[in-house]
Parts: sequence; C-alpha cells; structure tokens
Amino acid sequence: MRGPNIQNGETAATVGTLATPALLLDTDRLDRNLARLSSRMAARGVVLRPHMKTAKSIDVARRAYRSEPGPITVSTLAEAEYFARHGVRDMTYAVGLAPHAAERAMRLRKAGIDLKVLLDSPEQATMLGTAGRAAGVTPSAFIEIDCDGHRGGLTATDPKLIAVAAALGEAGVKLAGILTHAGESYSLCTPQALIAAAENERAVAVAAAEMLRAAGHECPVVSVGSTPTAHFAEDLTGITEMRAGVYMFFDLVMHGVGVCTTDDIAISVLATVIGTKPEKGWILVDAGWMALSRDRGTAAQRIDQGYGLVCDPCGKIYPDLIVAQASQEHGILAIRSGAAHALPDLSIGAKVRILPNHACATASQHELYNVVSAGSDTIEAQWPRMRGW
Amino acid sequence: MRGPNIQNGETAATVGTLATPALLLDTDRLDRNLARLSSRMAARGVVLRPHMKTAKSIDVARRAYRSEPGPITVSTLAEAEYFARHGVRDMTYAVGLAPHAAERAMRLRKAGIDLKVLLDSPEQATMLGTAGRAAGVTPSAFIEIDCDGHRGGLTATDPKLIAVAAALGEAGVKLAGILTHAGESYSLCTPQALIAAAENERAVAVAAAEMLRAAGHECPVVSVGSTPTAHFAEDLTGITEMRAGVYMFFDLVMHGVGVCTTDDIAISVLATVIGTKPEKGWILVDAGWMALSRDRGTAAQRIDQGYGLVCDPCGKIYPDLIVAQASQEHGILAIRSGAAHALPDLSIGAKVRILPNHACATASQHELYNVVSAGSDTIEAQWPRMRGW
Repeated sequence: MRGPNIQNGETAATVGTLATPALLLDTDRLDRNLARLSSRMAARGVVLRPHMKTAKSIDVARRAYRSEPGPITVSTLAEAEYFARHGVRDMTYAVGLAPHAAERAMRLRKAGIDLKVLLDSPEQATMLGTAGRAAGVTPSAFIEIDCDGHRGGLTATDPKLIAVAAALGEAGVKLAGILTHAGESYSLCTPQALIAAAENERAVAVAAAEMLRAAGHECPVVSVGSTPTAHFAEDLTGITEMRAGVYMFFDLVMHGVGVCTTDDIAISVLATVIGTKPEKGWILVDAGWMALSRDRGTAAQRIDQGYGLVCDPCGKIYPDLIVAQASQEHGILAIRSGAAHALPDLSIGAKVRILPNHACATASQHELYNVVSAGSDTIEAQWPRMRGW
Repeated sequence: MRGPNIQNGETAATVGTLATPALLLDTDRLDRNLARLSSRMAARGVVLRPHMKTAKSIDVARRAYRSEPGPITVSTLAEAEYFARHGVRDMTYAVGLAPHAAERAMRLRKAGIDLKVLLDSPEQATMLGTAGRAAGVTPSAFIEIDCDGHRGGLTATDPKLIAVAAALGEAGVKLAGILTHAGESYSLCTPQALIAAAENERAVAVAAAEMLRAAGHECPVVSVGSTPTAHFAEDLTGITEMRAGVYMFFDLVMHGVGVCTTDDIAISVLATVIGTKPEKGWILVDAGWMALSRDRGTAAQRIDQGYGLVCDPCGKIYPDLIVAQASQEHGILAIRSGAAHALPDLSIGAKVRILPNHACATASQHELYNVVSAGSDTIEAQWPRMRGW
C-alpha cells in the first residue's frame, strides 16, 4: 500500500482537494463485497479464484487474501507477470491461447509460477506441448467449455472434447480440468433467470467433466463463474472452483442485473463542475469518456444510466441525475428523461462522484485508485493499477 | 523516437512477431493526413493548432512540426505538462476551467509556457485572475462560444459574452480571443451538410468576435475547429486559427462522416486468432474492448462497423468482416449482418489488423504506437503515449 503521492509535489489528502477526474475506491464497500462472496463459497466448499481483470491491483488482491496470496484468475499475461512479481503463485490465464502467449506463459511456468492456460482445440494443445518442451516444463491447461453460446469453448456434448483431451495427453500437457463462464448471465435481470443460468452453468460444467472422466481422463478442477451466477447459484454439486471479478467493485450494470445495490458500488469517479447551462438543464463536469469509459452497458437494461449515476462528494445519490452525454473530457449531467426531479444547484468548482456502468472498463481508464473509507474525506492511500498485455 | 523495445527482453521487430493485441501506426498515412490539412490551412492563411488529445505523443507532434515545435491544443493539464517537458511552448487547454486547474495552469505559465485557458463565466474569470496573481503571472483566456448547442460556451448573441470579457479585464486576465468547436458535425454525413456546419461555425465565431470588438475588447484570435469542418470549410474569412485532432489518424467514424477513406486510417489494432466457431460464423481474436475501446460511434451511422473493420496483416480489408462483439479480452469476428461474403479462412495464430471506430478512444487503450510504413512488415520504432490528467 502506498501513501498519497499526488502529482506536482502537492499534498492533496482529501476528496475535496483531489485534482479531478480521479478514481475513488471505498474499501469498506470493497471489503463487504469480498466477504460476501468468499463466505458464500466457503459455506459451499468451493474454492474462490478471484478474477483480477477488474481490479488489476496487488493491493486489491491483498485485500482479498488477508494472509498468504491465494489463487487468482488473470485476463492477460502482463497481469500474470505483474502478480507473479508480487508473490502470487497460483494463476489461471482465462483467455484462449495464442502461439506467442504459449511461449510467454511457459516462461512464467519455468520461473516456478503455477500458471494454467485455456484452450479448446487440438492445434492449441500441440502448440502448447511444443512451447512446454522448448521451455523444459510440463504445461497445465483447462479445456474451455461453452455453456451458453456467448463466446468460445466446446459444448459438453461435442466429441471434439475428447479429441482435445487426447491431444493434450499426446502433447505432454497436464489436463487441469474444464472451465466455463456464464457470460450470458449479464443480460438477465430476475432472480429466477439468474438461478437458472447458474444451474445451467453448473450442469454443463459437470457434464463436460463427466464426459472426460468416462473417457479415462482425469478432470480434477471443474471451474465455473460469472459475478451474477456466483451470487445466485443454489447448488454447486460437482463444482470445485468459482471465478468472478467485478463482484469486488460492483457497478450499475450489476445493479441492473440485480446482484447488488447502488450502496455496494465501491468505485466512483470524482469530477468537478466546469460549467452550467440551466436553460438546457445541463451541468458540465470534467469527466468525459476518458475518465468514465465509453461503456454503455446499462443502455440495454431497464434503467439506462447514461454514462453513470451522479452522487454528491460523500456518495449520496442525486435522484435521477445521470451523465447524459460524454465527450473525451466533458460530461454533461442532466436529469433522466421523464423524471420529475429538479437539477441540483451545483456551481463551478463543486465536486460530484459518478458511479460507473462497468467497473472493469471505468477502472481501466485510470492509473491508480484513491482509497477512501465510508464517512471519511481522507485519501488514505493511492493504489496503482497495472495495464497492457 | 525510440527504437523497438519489446517486453521481456525479446526482439520482435516485425508485424508478424509482435505480441498482440498491439497498436500499429502507419507513418505514411499519418504524414499524408498531416500534410492534407496543413496545406489546406496554409493556402487559406489560417494557423493550424493541432489537437494532441488524439495522439498524446511528442513523436507524433514532431511529425506535425518538422522544424520548431508549433502551436498545439491539449485536452488535459497532464498533456500540457508532458508537451512542455518536450519543448512545446504555445498551447491552448481547450476544456472549461476548474479552480484546481487554474492554479496548475498558472504554474505552467510561470514556467514560461504560453498556456491559454478556456472559460465562459464571470466566476471563472475572477477565479483565474486570483490564480494568476497568486502565481505572479498574467493569465490568458479564450471565451468559449457555443456554435451548435452541443456542449458548453455562450452563444454569439448572449449578453453574458460582454460580461465575461469585462470580468476578465477586471481580473487582470488577457483576452486571447474566442474559441468554438462544431462538435455536432460528427453526426453529419453529406458534403452539403458539412459545408453548412463549417460556415455556421465560422459565422458564429466571427459574430462573437465582432460583438466583443464592438464593445471595445480586443479579440486577436478567432479559433474554430473540428476535423469534419476543418476539411469542408469553403470560406474562413475572419478566422485566424483552426483546431483539429483526429485528422492525424482518422477512423471509421470519420469515414462514415465522409472526411476520409479507409485507406487514410493510420492506426489499427493487431490481433491474433485464438479460436474459431465455423458453425456460428465466428472467428475469435485476442483483441476485445480493452484493446479496441468500448466506442461504438459507427452504431449511429449508415454503416455500423461493430467494434471495428478487419484487415489482413498488410492492411487489406476483408470485405464486410467486422468485430461483431467484444468482451474485455475477446473479439468475435463475423461477416456483417446481411452481407454475402464468406468468412475468410483464418486459423489459430493468424494475425489481423482492426481499423478503429474512434481513434482517440482506441489509441487511449494502449501505452505505445508500433510504428510501421506502408508495404513493410518492420516495426520501425515504438512511440510512447502519455495518459492521465
């Protein structure tokens, strides 16, 4: 954890004096979100392997693991290298393997990192075996299973599943298990549908594992996960591992799905009022899409939150005040279309906090987290984020 | 200019061997785009003040100015500080001024940088005067004019315009001139409409300047600009300065507006095939929204390009092949809905280049430009980008 280290040699240790736009992280909310899912998984005897693609921060990872570093999921090999430098040893790189990535992953494995990779074709298995032999290590790979048609992977009934497992064996690669992700759950919004999506994810994963076992392959890990299904799964029989990332911070999309309240959203973008257009019902702030991201994930939900929902500097929501438009460094605040609330009286220099549509996308626009606690104005630390590939 | 400096101590000096996703910049196209607008403005006797918010790179700025550094526009004070460190002296910060920004801008002015700021209210004028006196410098400010209702600024007939100019005088701030931006031109798509938008931008700017001059204020600079209007303006009488940024790189949105061809687009994202789903008509690549941005600017245009238009590694477009869907690190390539072309035969490990919807947004997802020339596979240099606020 670093202490505040404000640009230009200045000290700006409070929310009120921070240069804007700036990303805030409320550690009380973070801790509550982390505890919620880890206790849910502990109660079910399922290993939680947090996906660090959202936070991309060793300080956040340390918050998830109060003692020794535990297992994590990563979305890039740069993440794997970053977390390895900071002492994490057990990682799964959950993006389908490219040839150059295989070589780079094997270098990490050679350095003693238990990095597992993901694939869904015999060609990738052969390629990984070659990379492993070149590095002098035994690779370990998950076979990607497609549980809901949203992206890559093999269906649980695809005969190619056995062919991939066989190719792994021939290539000298250890079969770590199967891995699936219920990405379609992001588009749901009722508990019934989320429970059904979680059960489908479980059932497909277990069926794939059973198909492999019936063909004589060991399938030690049965890994599932998405933030919505992780929180709504009622039965995890046959599942050994859960992956989720955005649950640490939550966001307006997850609020729309019904997984969290707005009070659970742990990150926000601090912005300053730089103009007013009362005749148009507009307040201009210095946070545009560069600070908020272009993510409009709530546009397809029942409540469209524009580019974000606006709060006062303490985090209290202004009813129906959203970032209605965004250009690169400008946001236009306006009352949601059809709502009756009056525009709050905010003059130039006033600060607001903006809750993001999509925590992964908004956080990625920033270099660091300004760490705050509920009810306090003090910036307690600045936690750097890693980026790149 | 830096030479290639690939991660992990490796040398990867060609497009074929570069780790993906990676941002490519074609300097032949860049040079052609730079020359096109600079010769257009030179022919009209109008100063070109390139907006560096798109490129955020001193190496690109140096390409725009082959001899001494010339005038530039910036979108953040971090940009101003970065370019000042690299020898640029004449800058306009074209975002409405916040109190903390005024103090920071005056520190640059104290350091000898001719940094002009932007405002549209007497309160900002007073605040800027205070910051100037505290720093012991005379600030210089533009009054922002609203020419098309898209964001901040005063209309040319608003009596507040004179009040702001008077407040600047009282606060001891030099009136640099007026500045406007025809942001609504981005939503147009015919030459007639673009010519009309440019003429409106010109006419409003000149009217505002004349209103100030009639009230006894000097208004030396009359600054307009947007990439579409800069290229379509037929008459620039009364205009002294043109600002534009995305013209350096161009993108699919600008192609949809009708300002460039796809052959002019100077940046692309190099990606690798990581999976295929022929039964769905899908090819999966390792460039998702983290590499492409969430910008969907072409969604509102006549041709929706998804998250980008796909080319072979040499830059030749695959007809109607777009990034149809994107998650954080996955892109799904598919033939545009309704088009008859067959999916190209791309297997795992194959490379593609993706032309971006919005150059400003896509480039901002990357730490550096991999510099290439037309017809060559060699990475000639890596140019870093700055970021943050």
